[in-house]
Amino acid sequence: MEFLEKAILEKGKVLDGDILKVGSFFNQLMDISILEKIGKNIYQRFKDKNVTKILTVEASGIAMAVATALCFKCDVVFAKKSKTKNVEGEVYTADCYSFTHKTLNQLIVPKEYINSSDNVLIIDDFLATGEALNSLMDIVSQAKAKTVGIGIGIEKGFQKGGDKLREQGVDLFSLAVIDKMDTNGITFRK
Amino acid sequence: MEFLEKAILEKGKVLDGDILKVGSFFNQLMDISILEKIGKNIYQRFKDKNVTKILTVEASGIAMAVATALCFKCDVVFAKKSKTKNVEGEVYTADCYSFTHKTLNQLIVPKEYINSSDNVLIIDDFLATGEALNSLMDIVSQAKAKTVGIGIGIEKGFQKGGDKLREQGVDLFSLAVIDKMDTNGITFRK
Repeated sequence: MEFLEKAILEKGKVLDGDILKVGSFFNQLMDISILEKIGKNIYQRFKDKNVTKILTVEASGIAMAVATALCFKCDVVFAKKSKTKNVEGEVYTADCYSFTHKTLNQLIVPKEYINSSDNVLIIDDFLATGEALNSLMDIVSQAKAKTVGIGIGIEKGFQKGGDKLREQGVDLFSLAVIDKMDTNGITFRK
Repeated sequence: MEFLEKAILEKGKVLDGDILKVGSFFNQLMDISILEKIGKNIYQRFKDKNVTKILTVEASGIAMAVATALCFKCDVVFAKKSKTKNVEGEVYTADCYSFTHKTLNQLIVPKEYINSSDNVLIIDDFLATGEALNSLMDIVSQAKAKTVGIGIGIEKGFQKGGDKLREQGVDLFSLAVIDKMDTNGITFRK
């Protein structure tokens, strides 16, 4: 069994409403050995793709993105969820519905942070319906750059976002894919 | 001149209202070589302090915290700014006023993520008035753990938060301290 699946079974907790609580090792508290392994695994999977930039979304995607970028030695950009005083100049935007928080956000990346020559690896901690990833890929397209792959920590396979991306031909790598989960247990995809 | 001061002079931009825009290498886009050096420098400074946990605040503190934690091989916790569906159980809270965004936030850390035996190194990207750091130290105190030091990327020395912390005896290390800045230039503390 993979290290992340093992940690999910040992320390994760399924809450009502398809919520998987992994805050004690994968989100608000990040187990550094798990984070380091995630970065190295994603690097191994995409190291031949000539990745020039890693793109993620604040806040919980940043940790995995940084751990991975330190392996690639490439810069990291994160999309902000609302326009703040520190963002100025022209920006790419894409709407994004959050399944967890039931809110509509706008993802924002200043135009100067992605170049048309970039080979972008998108990183996120969770994949459920795929809304956030579609928005990030949209931003990469607007920049006329290329999305060379997507690296995910935990994919909720039963929400089908990952399968839709694979059908579209996206090179998607998830470290753990959950096909079924409820308060009785968690079943991973083989 | 230190690497971070050099990058600030080359790529930073002073905006009205004491805002320093460093998004192109230190915030929304993170230059990986700078991030790696920051982590290594903070590690060198605090490596004899028996650090068991790194604490930061979402979102922009996470990158530096992870880069530093990978040197220490210790876990990272970030304080959330509002209660979300993924946070459950008992939590520590501390009020925190954001100078940049002019809003009052509540910082939240689940009690189970900090133990009384922890030697906590607090990390943040910016230090201005010190509000966020005081709130994080408050949370560490509530957990009956020990704050062994604070590692900062850019300190706005002219806002005096850092000097107040030093007067209190806090072991504070800032990679770049700005004593004066306006649209004409930036002066670093020697």
